[in-house]
Amino acid sequence: MQPVLASIITIGDELLIGQTIDTNSAWMAQELNKVGIAVHRRLAIGDVWKDIWESLNEESRLSKIILITGGLGPTADDITKPLLCQYFGGKLVVNEAALVNVTSIFERLNRPLLERNLKQAEVPDVCTVIQNRRGTAPGMMFEKDGVIFVSMPGVPNEMKGMMTADVLPLLAGRFNLNPIVHRTLVTAGIGESFLAERIKEFEDSLPSNIKLAYLPNYGMVKLRLSATGNDNKTIAELEALFDMLKQQVADVMVIDEDISLQEAVGRLLSSHGKSMGTAESCTGGYIAHLLTGVSGASNYFKGSIVSYSNDIKQHLLDVSAQTLTTVGAVSEDTVIQMVKGALHQLKTDYIVATSGIMGPRGGSSEKPVGTVWIAVGNKNRIRTHHFHFRFDRQRNMDMTAQNALNMLRKFIIEMEQ
Amino acid sequence: MQPVLASIITIGDELLIGQTIDTNSAWMAQELNKVGIAVHRRLAIGDVWKDIWESLNEESRLSKIILITGGLGPTADDITKPLLCQYFGGKLVVNEAALVNVTSIFERLNRPLLERNLKQAEVPDVCTVIQNRRGTAPGMMFEKDGVIFVSMPGVPNEMKGMMTADVLPLLAGRFNLNPIVHRTLVTAGIGESFLAERIKEFEDSLPSNIKLAYLPNYGMVKLRLSATGNDNKTIAELEALFDMLKQQVADVMVIDEDISLQEAVGRLLSSHGKSMGTAESCTGGYIAHLLTGVSGASNYFKGSIVSYSNDIKQHLLDVSAQTLTTVGAVSEDTVIQMVKGALHQLKTDYIVATSGIMGPRGGSSEKPVGTVWIAVGNKNRIRTHHFHFRFDRQRNMDMTAQNALNMLRKFIIEMEQ
Repeated sequence: MQPVLASIITIGDELLIGQTIDTNSAWMAQELNKVGIAVHRRLAIGDVWKDIWESLNEESRLSKIILITGGLGPTADDITKPLLCQYFGGKLVVNEAALVNVTSIFERLNRPLLERNLKQAEVPDVCTVIQNRRGTAPGMMFEKDGVIFVSMPGVPNEMKGMMTADVLPLLAGRFNLNPIVHRTLVTAGIGESFLAERIKEFEDSLPSNIKLAYLPNYGMVKLRLSATGNDNKTIAELEALFDMLKQQVADVMVIDEDISLQEAVGRLLSSHGKSMGTAESCTGGYIAHLLTGVSGASNYFKGSIVSYSNDIKQHLLDVSAQTLTTVGAVSEDTVIQMVKGALHQLKTDYIVATSGIMGPRGGSSEKPVGTVWIAVGNKNRIRTHHFHFRFDRQRNMDMTAQNALNMLRKFIIEMEQ
Repeated sequence: MQPVLASIITIGDELLIGQTIDTNSAWMAQELNKVGIAVHRRLAIGDVWKDIWESLNEESRLSKIILITGGLGPTADDITKPLLCQYFGGKLVVNEAALVNVTSIFERLNRPLLERNLKQAEVPDVCTVIQNRRGTAPGMMFEKDGVIFVSMPGVPNEMKGMMTADVLPLLAGRFNLNPIVHRTLVTAGIGESFLAERIKEFEDSLPSNIKLAYLPNYGMVKLRLSATGNDNKTIAELEALFDMLKQQVADVMVIDEDISLQEAVGRLLSSHGKSMGTAESCTGGYIAHLLTGVSGASNYFKGSIVSYSNDIKQHLLDVSAQTLTTVGAVSEDTVIQMVKGALHQLKTDYIVATSGIMGPRGGSSEKPVGTVWIAVGNKNRIRTHHFHFRFDRQRNMDMTAQNALNMLRKFIIEMEQ
């Protein structure tokens, strides 16, 4: 059985001039995939009547489910609701539950209710209303010629609340769905082409219902197997193929799950009851940020010293003045001393330390932009590595953080054997 | 003169299952806007022959310029190049310059050159080749019935290199372009509806070539005026209207530019020759990360102590054990002591400190998830604020960081008067 096809339409000028990065669509696609709905088109258009109208015509020709976000705000540039009302031939009426919701939100905020806010409780009389538990604009579901249209606000947490509580269950009840199941592993230290060469026979032998994808990212390559169907036979087939794949890439595999390196590090530390901290110069707190983005990080992550200046390297991490004046802050000696200083100050089992030049300025002929030293260590041993990245500031930071986490991951595995 | 319309087509299954967030399109849209090309549609589709083919038909009906990214890799799931070759009726031939490029990259990496890598130097004989200075896959430009099609790799820095060096100049030479100019200001502390109510007359009186947009984001609302044309008359008109807008929202305006709060804080500190640091508990290094994402941050940002555990709050920031056991880590007393401790340890002019419960776990009836204390201070004064956010972990962190930066910004302005 083929998955039911969906289109996501995102409405808003801010998406078209590049002022906003669309993170909603990725989340929606993941959630839809889990229940067996395949997003095959994602379209972003502006707050333009004709463009929205045509996109509804066009996407409903190609998909059974059309999810629309954005354009439901209270201001004049938001035209989605009147347009949908006209498109589906309805008229706007006050929805009592939505009105109670809007009123109570303004009472809670202790703000006067404006006419334009009251209008947010109006909905076309031809839709099923989806209440918004996290904001003022209600969602709307329409059906036309067997195609389901759902309109939701563009505010991420409002959209997510509606999707989880109402939209996904409604869609699951309306269609006969067949989930899409993925198995993903992460490799590092091997290029996409070499990986492809190595697993060519495996790839060529895949059955038609299972698909392989290569996802290169920050010097790593993810391999993803996707199967349509969660019946026992399909799952067993997928698992067997995934095991084969794992064996073929065993030496370059980082993790056999689609989790981040910070999650992998967190699990390792938790399973061994160990703690960690960071001493960051060039990454400026980014590694700490990635680690504390994981819920429950306080069980193993204790803290960091971000020593962006040399003063702080000296005074808080006890890096010697001599090292800083002779070999400099971006050096093996410095990151080794940073690990030692941080082990002492933060009193954790493991420390990862970084020092480098992220760019665009600050490089020299001897130490060009992208020069990075990373050290990982515990009280018994310290391991260092020198990198030279050749990207822009943001990507150099990403590469440094990802490599630091991977070095730490390998070091912990070795030390806790 | 109306802007020339463009579509962006992003190809790749990873975008449709939500594994990758598309940041390319936003960057491309910004750059296109600057030269007078308006992106009116952005479409993401999978590595599916029929879907790509149809999208080329469809978008070329609606736009004069079609920019395509992705699907140019060396692996079997990458089908964009053969498809384009067939679509434009060409045949694949080796491009000598691209071959030299591929060969030299592999020599530099000291890796053997595989057959599939050599194939990357093949291009349809009906395209203009755009060399890739940052990777192996060349870009391709086609023309059909007056519509320009450009295909580029999906790797962000490769795409950016091609756009800047070749694609934008080529498009500017090919079309008679009229740049779109934006003026943006940021407000805080006022809802979108109230803002709209306040500037209703202003909005209604705008000429047809100037458009106003509301962009709500993390408790702030950006207001953007956009004009088509960069002739003196249009610019003068836009500036005059922008000045009027600024006057109408003066009391709630944060910045009259489209820059981030971390950039605004950085400029303030630089202009007064002052320094700062952070003492972060719940934000776990995120504020430091935002600040150090700005190039040149080392001029004013000195470092941080991320005190995720109470031990580190006590030992490195000198928060009293009594405070931690009586009122707890998430309290006004704690963030005040964190500011004092960090001023002492980091020796900066300003410190911002955070402590809170980001969720999803760790809340209690007395201090539910979303409870946050923030303090900003210098050696003379400390200011605190209590927040209660009601979002998920990531958004609670974002709200905390944005509010902390805004509190710091206001505090610096007041102190440096």
